[in-house]
Amino acid sequence: MRRSYRNSQQPALTAHLGAAIAKLHGRDLPAQACAIVRRGLVDCIGVMIAGSTEPAVERVRSVLGPPWSGEARLFPDGIRCSARDAALVNGMAAHVHDFDDVALDGHPSAVLVPALLAEAEAIGAKGADVIRGYVAGYETWATLWKASAGPLHARGWHPSGVFGVVAAAAACAALRRLTPDETTSALGLAAAQAAGLIANFGTMAKSFQVGHAAEAGLFSARLALGGVNASHEALEHKHGFLNAYAGAHSDGGGGFGDPDWAILEQGLDIKVYPVCYAAHRLIEGALQLAKEFALTPPSIDSIELRLGRIQSDLLHSHRPRTVLEAKFSAEFAVAAALVAKAVGLNELREGFVLSDDVQHLIDRTVRMIDPELGEPPFSPFDQVKVRLSDGRVLEGSHVKHASGSRYAPPSKAESWEKFKGSAGYHLPVGSTRQLFEALWDLNPSRSITELLDDTGLRTAA
Amino acid sequence: MRRSYRNSQQPALTAHLGAAIAKLHGRDLPAQACAIVRRGLVDCIGVMIAGSTEPAVERVRSVLGPPWSGEARLFPDGIRCSARDAALVNGMAAHVHDFDDVALDGHPSAVLVPALLAEAEAIGAKGADVIRGYVAGYETWATLWKASAGPLHARGWHPSGVFGVVAAAAACAALRRLTPDETTSALGLAAAQAAGLIANFGTMAKSFQVGHAAEAGLFSARLALGGVNASHEALEHKHGFLNAYAGAHSDGGGGFGDPDWAILEQGLDIKVYPVCYAAHRLIEGALQLAKEFALTPPSIDSIELRLGRIQSDLLHSHRPRTVLEAKFSAEFAVAAALVAKAVGLNELREGFVLSDDVQHLIDRTVRMIDPELGEPPFSPFDQVKVRLSDGRVLEGSHVKHASGSRYAPPSKAESWEKFKGSAGYHLPVGSTRQLFEALWDLNPSRSITELLDDTGLRTAA
Repeated sequence: MRRSYRNSQQPALTAHLGAAIAKLHGRDLPAQACAIVRRGLVDCIGVMIAGSTEPAVERVRSVLGPPWSGEARLFPDGIRCSARDAALVNGMAAHVHDFDDVALDGHPSAVLVPALLAEAEAIGAKGADVIRGYVAGYETWATLWKASAGPLHARGWHPSGVFGVVAAAAACAALRRLTPDETTSALGLAAAQAAGLIANFGTMAKSFQVGHAAEAGLFSARLALGGVNASHEALEHKHGFLNAYAGAHSDGGGGFGDPDWAILEQGLDIKVYPVCYAAHRLIEGALQLAKEFALTPPSIDSIELRLGRIQSDLLHSHRPRTVLEAKFSAEFAVAAALVAKAVGLNELREGFVLSDDVQHLIDRTVRMIDPELGEPPFSPFDQVKVRLSDGRVLEGSHVKHASGSRYAPPSKAESWEKFKGSAGYHLPVGSTRQLFEALWDLNPSRSITELLDDTGLRTAA
Repeated sequence: MRRSYRNSQQPALTAHLGAAIAKLHGRDLPAQACAIVRRGLVDCIGVMIAGSTEPAVERVRSVLGPPWSGEARLFPDGIRCSARDAALVNGMAAHVHDFDDVALDGHPSAVLVPALLAEAEAIGAKGADVIRGYVAGYETWATLWKASAGPLHARGWHPSGVFGVVAAAAACAALRRLTPDETTSALGLAAAQAAGLIANFGTMAKSFQVGHAAEAGLFSARLALGGVNASHEALEHKHGFLNAYAGAHSDGGGGFGDPDWAILEQGLDIKVYPVCYAAHRLIEGALQLAKEFALTPPSIDSIELRLGRIQSDLLHSHRPRTVLEAKFSAEFAVAAALVAKAVGLNELREGFVLSDDVQHLIDRTVRMIDPELGEPPFSPFDQVKVRLSDGRVLEGSHVKHASGSRYAPPSKAESWEKFKGSAGYHLPVGSTRQLFEALWDLNPSRSITELLDDTGLRTAA
């Protein structure tokens, strides 16, 4: 049963959300929702540490400081700066590899987690506060997503930037227990800063847009707590957020939280491969074939990929030559799986992308866009077919769900494998394991700063 | 003659602007353009000082600090903070009274001046750099404004927030002499942060949106200078700025600067009255009648206002009871002129708005919306008619241009009158005059910090 926010019992959307966020209590959260949040938190911090030395992140850092001093840490080296700066830099790092989790047409954890960790450190909040804040942010994001008339992508918006800033404000408002009035103003102040364009994809500005959402959301909650007000109709106003960004809005946007938890319905898709999510099922199909038939590149004559039209548009690079192009290439994804039997950060290097084996297979790959394979977001299944030099044709299975998706969430062991490969990039293995365990269990009554300090993260430069 | 940015000689818009901004030289600026900038600068700093103690400004300040330290000053008390914070707070102060100048469907000086002053102080720039930066910002704003398919207001956007952030980035890029590549990235990073909703009008978030544009523009130029890149097609890309915010864009957007200087064509409308610009001609009509016939409130039976439809929509409050409502009320504007023979900050007080004389006249005022009085932005003229208790009807003249408009720019004496009344709110009269003279002449080769320090501004708390 969907609830409309426009029936006679409820105030309009902004005030409704403000009240719902403010009254969210940890004791009301389903255990499964908390498990999803912890999985997203672990995954996000892993990819954030892996991304922390990317040029986009390092350049923004160097514009912000030194000198450094402040309330929250940058990952993983523990440099302390203002919470806003930490949210921006850590948010960029979390998204820069495009290896972070996916839901609601965007990247919830890369926006919410950096904002929440920075504010938690600034005010000495605990694990339980972060979980409550995350759920508030996720449910807010989902409410806006459902209330939008159509996908933001189609109008040029980067949804993680646009929805993300309002969701991050909701998250920080819940973390800090703002009143309903303050929370409503925080949403309006966030709507005043929502931004991010698809045109910037493929540049450093893409991850900046994600970090900016985290920063601006955190700042919005602080401003509201400081008595700065905003329209209490900022989202649903005829000259407000939904009309301006989504062109129109439907009144059947759904409620917030109990009983129709969006986080239980939509979950998080955890990425197992550091490339565009639209290529993940093709990778799995290719890995299955590679392993079952012990394929080697010279034995392959040609490759045929069956996927949906929208997916194919997202995978815009057909003949990639750079790492960034490779991240958005169905051809590279499958070639990497067939050549290396794995698609990880090790494969996302220029030397591998340009290697003879990979380029050879890329050149021999065609896409079959089956219009009957459904409409957005994804087709019902993807399939890889390989024609061998000896004439045989190997038909891969119909892959419906990628590993790590909400339908097959990663186990603790699988989460650790990814964490080890991502956080382990910059941390000694002992600290990596300690950090993973502390985050996976996330003691609800322990302060976030203490928890992070005790993992040895602080001194691991 | 308009130039298109899409003919074969020119690159697409973003790169075209980046190159044009980077090659702007002070020696190429027409003297009249420099005079317009100086007039805007003086006016902006006056209203900024007047607005500096408004609750919206003080609350944002208190979220940002203390502790205070940094590169740029807050007006007028000289507290030093980061340039980004100074741009935000001073930008809010410049707009919070809605007494700042108007052009290009927005408020150029309230965005550009705070960004430029903060960055000028941070890097020790001179008067000439600020003038060059202002012209770069204005021409960029005008280029986007002309390239938009329709008014941003109609789609819910606050144009000063949306155009303003890109213009402020252009201004700071020119101030700091970024390369064409860096400047182009600065525009893309600004486009990644453009925001601001009409829904927030009437709340503290409105002036925040203006301050945010100043801050985000300044930050964009810094990021680009630090090597952070963005799409070099961010403005004209099919999923870029113009399509996302303006819905579509025309290719005949006009050039940038020489020979068709937008700043000479569009100028600045300096506000003489601290209310919505749509009411200014009605105020002048009422003042003429009040003076010519020595009208007193009891002698007035009823008032009829003739104005355009769009203007009337902007003046949304018909029966104002608060100062904020009064700022957007044709009825209050005319009543204040008839009662006080003046409409200044002294009249924008709750006691005056609620006074018997003013409320009496407001109740007796009707609007005649003449559909033949043209389309947006304004009707060809406004008119006030007063019916007296003795039966006589006084017909005011057709007022085409308000005092201070680009068609009748204020003289030095008129500028001083406004400056004295606005900056004089918080400064001793000696400092006020010193500051006015220093800004009016704006020594091009003197550092901005020195210039401001020497006016006694720093110690006038």
